[in-house]
Amino acid sequence: MSKRDVVIMADINAENDRLAEEIHRGLAAKGIFTINVIGAPGVGKTSTLTRIIEGLGGIPCAVVEGDIQSDIDTQKLLERGIPSVQINTGGACHIDASLMQSALHDFPLQENSLLWIENIGNLVCPAEFMIGEDVKLLLCAATDGADKPYKYPLAFEKAALILINKADLLPHVDFDLEYFTRGVRALNPGAPILPVSAKTGEGIGEVCAWIRQRRSGR
Amino acid sequence: MSKRDVVIMADINAENDRLAEEIHRGLAAKGIFTINVIGAPGVGKTSTLTRIIEGLGGIPCAVVEGDIQSDIDTQKLLERGIPSVQINTGGACHIDASLMQSALHDFPLQENSLLWIENIGNLVCPAEFMIGEDVKLLLCAATDGADKPYKYPLAFEKAALILINKADLLPHVDFDLEYFTRGVRALNPGAPILPVSAKTGEGIGEVCAWIRQRRSGR
Repeated sequence: MSKRDVVIMADINAENDRLAEEIHRGLAAKGIFTINVIGAPGVGKTSTLTRIIEGLGGIPCAVVEGDIQSDIDTQKLLERGIPSVQINTGGACHIDASLMQSALHDFPLQENSLLWIENIGNLVCPAEFMIGEDVKLLLCAATDGADKPYKYPLAFEKAALILINKADLLPHVDFDLEYFTRGVRALNPGAPILPVSAKTGEGIGEVCAWIRQRRSGR
Repeated sequence: MSKRDVVIMADINAENDRLAEEIHRGLAAKGIFTINVIGAPGVGKTSTLTRIIEGLGGIPCAVVEGDIQSDIDTQKLLERGIPSVQINTGGACHIDASLMQSALHDFPLQENSLLWIENIGNLVCPAEFMIGEDVKLLLCAATDGADKPYKYPLAFEKAALILINKADLLPHVDFDLEYFTRGVRALNPGAPILPVSAKTGEGIGEVCAWIRQRRSGR
């Protein structure tokens, strides 16, 4: 990158953070708690989210669904009666605050609800961009190996909660939880690390308890 | 993105492609066939690559290993006697031609060898950047669901060969191969789709046969 490009990137990032702060203030003023869900392609973001939302019965939830292309996941959520709006980035590898602002423009949100943002399937850039959230939730998968914290550190550093999905497949794969945990703790001393399964529902109760507590405690 | 940013991005892409073309000419002049391996985090790029390289016995291979941070995979390859050099992007979500040029600067390559590039774990941006390769190999995983072609179309469109790794776990997951294949074929009529397992070695022989043929036929 040339010096000119670096200056422009710094401009873009500062403008993004300013707008993210404005979005966050608007949501918080309505008592809305916002969770930015980050994870690689195929870790099970939509299915885990669906399980958690069902487990949170009583708290109204809505989802901003981010994809490069397609609305497969939004359709799945709408079929389950979960209010959802689609962002298609058309190629961009993350949601930024400006896309988030457009998505919220015509999306009615209840006071004191939970707003979920399912970011683009990517462990890299989504971690760099604030988009109005209270917390980031990072979803990994037991089938993806335990070395992810060492290879994609920023996502682990920024997460308030780290889930290891596909725990039902743990008997069939080599996943070294101790190595994984050590990698996370070098970056992030406090975030809980919880194994879950969107397939069986394992661990979802603990996730819901964490969210209820964090939401009331902010 | 503002108009100014779009113009600058177009400049960057054109400069990247020019440099990629130059790198490719230099490699081809030495009879080197170059494969850019793309896949999401955790699909098993390094382990599959290792299996393929071992299966290609007799053809000298070398690897340019891309990671945001760490040299875990390069160490694994070197332990197996595979010449490897590490690129750390320090945050960037793909390898570009300029990083590739730097990596090759001090990396001795044999004439008529195979050069593998393991790109950053990301299904989005690596597909956009040519980095001197003859072909792109896309690695998916049976544990990641069959909807990837619909959500990350560019990577599927650009791939010359598409592998579905972790085929040994197929009995334990719901992977709809027909839906996957239909999604791929809408974007890419010709690329073979092969199930493989870096764990058991299943399908690796077919991959090696494809590579030998493609290398001699170019």
